[in-house]
Amino acid sequence: MSAQTGRSAVTVLGLGPMGRALAAALLGAGLRTTVWNRTPGRDAEAVAAGALPASSAAEAVAASPLTVVCVVNYDASDAVLRQDAVTAALRGRTLVNLSADTPGRARETATWAERQGIRYLDGAIMTPTPTIGTPDAVFLHSGPADLYEEHRPVLEALGGTHTHLGADPGRAAAFDIALLDIFWTAMSGYAHALALAGAEGVRASELLPFAQGIGAILLPLFAESARDLEAGTFPGEGNPLTSALSTMEHVVQLSDAHGIDAGLMRAAEAMARRAVEGGHGADGFTRVAEMLGGR
Amino acid sequence: MSAQTGRSAVTVLGLGPMGRALAAALLGAGLRTTVWNRTPGRDAEAVAAGALPASSAAEAVAASPLTVVCVVNYDASDAVLRQDAVTAALRGRTLVNLSADTPGRARETATWAERQGIRYLDGAIMTPTPTIGTPDAVFLHSGPADLYEEHRPVLEALGGTHTHLGADPGRAAAFDIALLDIFWTAMSGYAHALALAGAEGVRASELLPFAQGIGAILLPLFAESARDLEAGTFPGEGNPLTSALSTMEHVVQLSDAHGIDAGLMRAAEAMARRAVEGGHGADGFTRVAEMLGGR
Ligand SMILES: NC(=O)c1ccc[n+]([C@@H]2O[C@H](COP(=O)([O-])OP(=O)(O)OC[C@H]3O[C@@H](n4cnc5c(N)ncnc54)[C@H](OP(=O)(O)O)[C@@H]3O)[C@@H](O)[C@H]2O)c1
Ligand SMILES: NC(=O)c1ccc[n+]([C@@H]2O[C@H](COP(=O)([O-])OP(=O)(O)OC[C@H]3O[C@@H](n4cnc5c(N)ncnc54)[C@H](OP(=O)(O)O)[C@@H]3O)[C@@H](O)[C@H]2O)c1
Repeated sequence: MSAQTGRSAVTVLGLGPMGRALAAALLGAGLRTTVWNRTPGRDAEAVAAGALPASSAAEAVAASPLTVVCVVNYDASDAVLRQDAVTAALRGRTLVNLSADTPGRARETATWAERQGIRYLDGAIMTPTPTIGTPDAVFLHSGPADLYEEHRPVLEALGGTHTHLGADPGRAAAFDIALLDIFWTAMSGYAHALALAGAEGVRASELLPFAQGIGAILLPLFAESARDLEAGTFPGEGNPLTSALSTMEHVVQLSDAHGIDAGLMRAAEAMARRAVEGGHGADGFTRVAEMLGGR
Repeated sequence: MSAQTGRSAVTVLGLGPMGRALAAALLGAGLRTTVWNRTPGRDAEAVAAGALPASSAAEAVAASPLTVVCVVNYDASDAVLRQDAVTAALRGRTLVNLSADTPGRARETATWAERQGIRYLDGAIMTPTPTIGTPDAVFLHSGPADLYEEHRPVLEALGGTHTHLGADPGRAAAFDIALLDIFWTAMSGYAHALALAGAEGVRASELLPFAQGIGAILLPLFAESARDLEAGTFPGEGNPLTSALSTMEHVVQLSDAHGIDAGLMRAAEAMARRAVEGGHGADGFTRVAEMLGGR
């Protein structure tokens, strides 16, 4: 390794909202941190907090034994990492990719890294920027267990909980995407509900306590549904799919009446309807997951 | 009022899963309860628990000063209530419709009831059957405040929290539909996530703790989003719509790769894309609610 290796403990490539939060947490934990971002000047906040600036991605990578990249997706991380000088600087060092993308892109990047002699871990961040550096942050990791153990102290300096999900480098991304699926669907449903409530003269703050009540009952229902799916049983005595479908239709009707796009609920309704038309109308909602296949 | 009025305190029409739960809670609270269901025989559970059976809906209604109807929707409650004998028996008595439907149907039913000399309250049940009779139940009510106050003791015997939302009889249904919008969208997203995780070899029980973590962060985000919408400000520094859109695309890509229908996320993505194409890419996600209109 070059003499520069000792200059800092960790390099952060990408200083969007999340990269800035990562750098701030590392600095807050007392780690010497080098930073770089494609668009110059966006390192100001990190540098003011004590980070070492770098004039190129290659120089940034060469400064530390461990580089964390966190950009919008893997097209972006490829654009940064697959430049000859950067790839050369990464050789023999460890790269942790915390950008979000598909499991396939993660696995392909791990294969590329192995060919280049780069030690590679893949990861995903499950919580928003204000959680980084606090106990509320959630990080997922995948790749070689020994490499993860080696860098765990620095990774844990990011705060929160860190879970190593296995050697398959695509595993963190698989969890990430399934969780983003839940997150963005629920947030979209909430945005739609706010619009619909507004059309009925119900203010967002009036709906809020009840919306949070709905959020709270999701937790035990998620557990029940996971159990049902693994057991392959779909009890619907308490709330059969036919009854669910009827209330979904009300959402569509009221949206249509107010001229509010109901594409989201129409799609949800189509999933439930397929299960009912498949003869499962008396089953519980988890039958929908089974009907979607993919197990 | 007829001599029969004193026979029982409350009548329950409709003995699906929810009607049975309502009858059980009323009986559990020590109230004399009369029950009836369209399909004969489905009163067995309630009658075994001490409910008084009725041979017709009209007879059931005539037995109590207060009737609660809880059937699949207002087509069903109309089919029960708008028979001459039942309408006649309801005259001068109070009817509480806890079936789910649109605000328009609730308002139309209130108008019908007023014309018939029936005292009318509309309501909605926001929690599943196992909560009924427990502190976890959530009931919403709307209609004349004094009528609500008069029957509140019996309604509160159903357990949980009861909120009177105002005199407009459609208000409980408006809240109900907005909340069902959130609920079924989130449950559909979770069902889809389970299918997607399964296709990636991730078991439902492995995903569950992280899925519950997502569920937990929804609560503060719902509050933040409600504040943003009312303030008409959509700060996106932490997580701009362009970044959201990128991760939504990953869900669609991975679904397509596994042949799992991604209509739900495509619909969510379309909502976000419209906001980005409207020039709001740097804004936060709540801009989507504003773009849907209806306020
Ligand atoms: N923000 C959150 O709350 C959150 C939560 C969990 C996970 N994440 C994930 O964290 C990652 C980073 O997110 P973010 O919030 O920082 O914002 P973002 O908008 O997703 O990413 C912005 C970063 O990507 C860089 N970038 C984009 N295209 C590039 C390219 N072709 N070449 C080089 N750099 C490029 C930007 O550089 P420029 O400044 O030069 O444009 C900037 O550093 C994303 O994968 C996101 O999904 C974010
Ligand atoms: N189950 C829950 O967890 C839950 C939670 C919140 C709110 N709710 C709401 O509570 C209401 C009742 O739900 P549920 O769970 O009991 O199941 P449901 O399947 O929605 O309703 C079943 C009841 O509706 C009756 N019904 C259907 N069509 C009818 C018609 N044309 N004429 C007369 N009766 C008719 C059924 O009678 P038959 O037995 O004769 O078919 C049965 O009593 C629904 O509006 C539902 O949305 C339910």
